[in-house]
Amino acid sequence: MELEPEPMVRRGRPRSEAADGRIADAARELLLDRGYDQFSVDEVAVRAGVAKTTLYRRWPTKDHLVVAVVARMQDDVPVEYRGDVRADLTRYLNAIVDGLHRMRLAGRPSTSGDSSAGVVAEVAAAAARHADIGAAVHAMFLRRNVLVLRLIEQARDAGELSDGVDAEVLFDQLAGALYYRLLITGAPIDAAYVDRLVAGALRGTSA
Amino acid sequence: MELEPEPMVRRGRPRSEAADGRIADAARELLLDRGYDQFSVDEVAVRAGVAKTTLYRRWPTKDHLVVAVVARMQDDVPVEYRGDVRADLTRYLNAIVDGLHRMRLAGRPSTSGDSSAGVVAEVAAAAARHADIGAAVHAMFLRRNVLVLRLIEQARDAGELSDGVDAEVLFDQLAGALYYRLLITGAPIDAAYVDRLVAGALRGTSA
Repeated sequence: MELEPEPMVRRGRPRSEAADGRIADAARELLLDRGYDQFSVDEVAVRAGVAKTTLYRRWPTKDHLVVAVVARMQDDVPVEYRGDVRADLTRYLNAIVDGLHRMRLAGRPSTSGDSSAGVVAEVAAAAARHADIGAAVHAMFLRRNVLVLRLIEQARDAGELSDGVDAEVLFDQLAGALYYRLLITGAPIDAAYVDRLVAGALRGTSA
Repeated sequence: MELEPEPMVRRGRPRSEAADGRIADAARELLLDRGYDQFSVDEVAVRAGVAKTTLYRRWPTKDHLVVAVVARMQDDVPVEYRGDVRADLTRYLNAIVDGLHRMRLAGRPSTSGDSSAGVVAEVAAAAARHADIGAAVHAMFLRRNVLVLRLIEQARDAGELSDGVDAEVLFDQLAGALYYRLLITGAPIDAAYVDRLVAGALRGTSA
């Protein structure tokens, strides 16, 4: 019993963007609301009003759907070079920090004072355990991070950064410091830290 | 996680260092040999020739024992300022890279060409799931990382780094980039990358 719009696609009709949007919204809402443990593909199907088979065909496991949610959240983070590399990187990193906090607090009170990495660590563990999830996570970050590399290169071309700047290393240092604190040392990440981080990283890269 | 004194201490008897050493060696060997999934406290007890209760009293779960193994491996990494901060940080980071590769390949063929973070991701996930494991992981890194912060400060005091260097940020950038690539983007970490990383990070910090 098919309750979903697949057959339409085969007849040359556009795939139901409304259903895609409902699925994505329901998945994100459920993940942030319940957290990783209580997140389930079945529940997303119920909330989105689509057949379970529709979801399982595209996201065979809960981890696949969680990665899709994270990818969509990342796509919401603006990456734009506006002519002030310090301000532009600071804005980008603060948006990353906001997203990381939302993910780590998923399913928990927003006032939770602990430093658990929550869903962020679950995604890293799923990527390490299952090669296909790992490939999806790596592809997601590659696709997004290329935008920040371009931002750095634009700043270099505009004369804000020195010609010799290693864009990839500079980006790894910035993003890496945030994930390292969240996943490994438990040290806080906030706007004050982002300011120190950007100042430290740009110190030697100014033209 | 510290190797806590046994109850024997309460009776004024010296703790069995031989048994501690056997347990630590057996745990490390089993973890590297079998990987996270096949690692068990029971098997470590058998291999070390000690009672299971001895292990469970000190490491209530498999994760506690895994963290103790990681802590011991970290303690084997030399951190020393010898007067050339670039060389000293490069040597330290290469040792970290070696340890990360051993951990990520635990239980798998050393020729494994994938980029899975393996046990490193399992430790991060365990730290996120269980507050006491998280506290132990954070304490372990705090205890180790303070040595590298001291190295950076010694280099600053020796005039190799500028007075304004933010040691904590500099360290987060270096270690963070390695963990970020391993856990998140799957990009390779090797000696060539360490060279680029140290060059990029020290670029603006030279006195």
